[in-house]
Amino acid sequence: MAVTDLATRTYDHNFRLDPIVRSLLDTDFYKLLMLQMIRHIHSDVKATFSLINRTTSVRLAEVIDEAELRAQLDHARSVRFSKKELIWLAGNSFYGKQQMFAPDFIAWLAEFRLPAYDLRKVDGQYELRFEGPWTHTTMWEIPALAIINELRSRAAMRDRGKFALDVLYARAKTKLWDKVERLRELPDLVISDFGTRRRHGFLWQRWCVDALKEGLGNRFIGTSNVLLAMDADLEAIGTNAHELPMVAAALAKSDDALLNAPYQVLEEWQAHYNGNLLIALPDAFGTTAFLKNAPDWLANWTGFRPDSPPIEAGEQIIRWWQERGVDPAKRLLIFSDGMDIGTIEQTYRHFHGRVRMSFGWGTNLTNDFRGCDPDGVAGLEPISLVCKVTSANGRPAVKLSDNPSKATGLPEEVARYRRIFGTAGHVAAPVLV
Amino acid sequence: MAVTDLATRTYDHNFRLDPIVRSLLDTDFYKLLMLQMIRHIHSDVKATFSLINRTTSVRLAEVIDEAELRAQLDHARSVRFSKKELIWLAGNSFYGKQQMFAPDFIAWLAEFRLPAYDLRKVDGQYELRFEGPWTHTTMWEIPALAIINELRSRAAMRDRGKFALDVLYARAKTKLWDKVERLRELPDLVISDFGTRRRHGFLWQRWCVDALKEGLGNRFIGTSNVLLAMDADLEAIGTNAHELPMVAAALAKSDDALLNAPYQVLEEWQAHYNGNLLIALPDAFGTTAFLKNAPDWLANWTGFRPDSPPIEAGEQIIRWWQERGVDPAKRLLIFSDGMDIGTIEQTYRHFHGRVRMSFGWGTNLTNDFRGCDPDGVAGLEPISLVCKVTSANGRPAVKLSDNPSKATGLPEEVARYRRIFGTAGHVAAPVLV
Repeated sequence: MAVTDLATRTYDHNFRLDPIVRSLLDTDFYKLLMLQMIRHIHSDVKATFSLINRTTSVRLAEVIDEAELRAQLDHARSVRFSKKELIWLAGNSFYGKQQMFAPDFIAWLAEFRLPAYDLRKVDGQYELRFEGPWTHTTMWEIPALAIINELRSRAAMRDRGKFALDVLYARAKTKLWDKVERLRELPDLVISDFGTRRRHGFLWQRWCVDALKEGLGNRFIGTSNVLLAMDADLEAIGTNAHELPMVAAALAKSDDALLNAPYQVLEEWQAHYNGNLLIALPDAFGTTAFLKNAPDWLANWTGFRPDSPPIEAGEQIIRWWQERGVDPAKRLLIFSDGMDIGTIEQTYRHFHGRVRMSFGWGTNLTNDFRGCDPDGVAGLEPISLVCKVTSANGRPAVKLSDNPSKATGLPEEVARYRRIFGTAGHVAAPVLV
Repeated sequence: MAVTDLATRTYDHNFRLDPIVRSLLDTDFYKLLMLQMIRHIHSDVKATFSLINRTTSVRLAEVIDEAELRAQLDHARSVRFSKKELIWLAGNSFYGKQQMFAPDFIAWLAEFRLPAYDLRKVDGQYELRFEGPWTHTTMWEIPALAIINELRSRAAMRDRGKFALDVLYARAKTKLWDKVERLRELPDLVISDFGTRRRHGFLWQRWCVDALKEGLGNRFIGTSNVLLAMDADLEAIGTNAHELPMVAAALAKSDDALLNAPYQVLEEWQAHYNGNLLIALPDAFGTTAFLKNAPDWLANWTGFRPDSPPIEAGEQIIRWWQERGVDPAKRLLIFSDGMDIGTIEQTYRHFHGRVRMSFGWGTNLTNDFRGCDPDGVAGLEPISLVCKVTSANGRPAVKLSDNPSKATGLPEEVARYRRIFGTAGHVAAPVLV
């Protein structure tokens, strides 16, 4: 394990350009898995991804310098997959499977670079858009979020002295380790790091991953961050994400096709990965509608990654399995929406023994500096920033989610989706992270 | 300010000899002030200093390797005052006074080295004794204690991984900074570091001093550690210690001379330093006896450094001033016995506005790792280790103190001192640090 003096490194950030994106593997594993399928089946689709800051009270364009942002985005565009990285992707096994990535895909990655971006300031916020082939724009999601989040952290820390930074990191480490000690009380815990996109910074995420590895042993099963997985010999964790049903839905030519889109992409997935990686996200257009219309074969999948609140969402899926005669104890629920120590403990204790479960711990793992800043200055609390597909082949994309506050898309399209999928089970709740 | 990655440095300690005593200035300032007077007036006195571990439950000889201990003691004997250090001692002002140290004393220091030591293992403890001219043995007190305490810390941390050390220091920093934030609530606080002898380690003491400097601004008036004072441009703090009355008492030829010994050394001090540095320690043989027999001129001194408990000890001295028609608001009390955040707050609030006060913060500043070790292993809690003068010119030395548990000396001599000074005001209390 490399020990980095975080305070010194952070202090030094302020005085030179330290790239935020060090590698194209510094992304979530599911992006690579989805990319392989997108390239195989949907290489002709054009998709636009857009940055959306749901925490509108934080005016990002007033916090982050535009020139710095462009410098980091430009730098990310200059990064290529290195030979070492491609050899590892080709030679490593993932989820116990050799050659998860086909040789022609690896060869294609060797030529890959992030496409152009479109950046402007509008009303105190950044409009950041990526237009082009889905095979390329999809790869911007994680680096774009990581860049904005880390530039925001750096801006908040810019005027701190070395000592204040030293105390800040000491407190953040203390806070995280106290959480680790609580997690140790859960003997059958299965947990992984999902915190790349909202992280405080790359070096801090690395420390957090090291902390879980050190503190939880084999209860920590890995990280969604491919670079950290490679460097620390951990499992890369992830399967697929909302962009698959969102693009399929946008491209659907009729209301019936729209209603069927979420299942169509899961069939593609199942076929593409030969029955591996069978985890479904039920909430792109509302979990209740998804489960109601779901085909029976989905009950044979390994499990679901439910939305929050975790206990209600989990119970709903367990009922669905039971109605289909499936024993939930043989199925898996992966809880990953806004989890923190308290909700992990609660959810673990609630479901323990009834269903297999694992936790994907994101923002509250890699960006919890609340109460840690000795100067008490704002700017380090995490914000709800996402980078979503907003159109496919020129047709608008929509996400409804179980929480209407998290819906994205043109209002008239959101209304149409709500009409078609229904709004049963949608409950408004504040979006914290 | 130099930022040191404490975890890495500590980890590295385990694999090579990293000297604990880096400089002969790595000692308490009062040792140098006393030394100058001892050399001037008592250069013919021989004094023996001995290590006393009052925490007998900690068997030091089973914790600290003898070869390592000898290596560190031998290394300390090889250290000389450097030219830079002597120039600073000669050229710096102390307590606003230029040339506190006379040129001939500085010239004498240039030739100084620590004298031989006598080390043996007895019943799980180390017997460590320094015999020879008082002018030389006195200088072993602080380095000997610092070496034993740091070797004990290192032994406790020897088998910790880098990550456990990282968490350990993060928690210790967090704990200290929380104390700093509480101290900030005391607007008229005056505090200094007195933690050299019982410190966890040199680098950690340096961090603690940096923390107080950073967090308390000019409420932090300096450090007793001369090296840290020089390096960080802080005031060196200190005046005199119990060894002066203890040696004077040991050499006293009659019971009357013994009773007068504590005042005789203060007269010498006053004359030697031309009326500067007028702080008296009242408790070598019991504060009640000291005050009862004290000459009137002592009421004109700047103040006292009372024993604990601080509030009772302070009230007793305030009454004594008032009985002599002296306004306590014009006098100073320096509280330095076993203080920590709680007793500092209590004492500050109790005396605020009635007397000038300052705090010398020792062990609980520089060695408070209680609850910080993620592995929960013992060995980092501070112990009550002292290095006291035990004889002068072959005659046994005694300290009674206000707390009989802290008395040192041959039992028959302790009994004689108790008969002569009386035991009024002596109250037994556990010795924590």
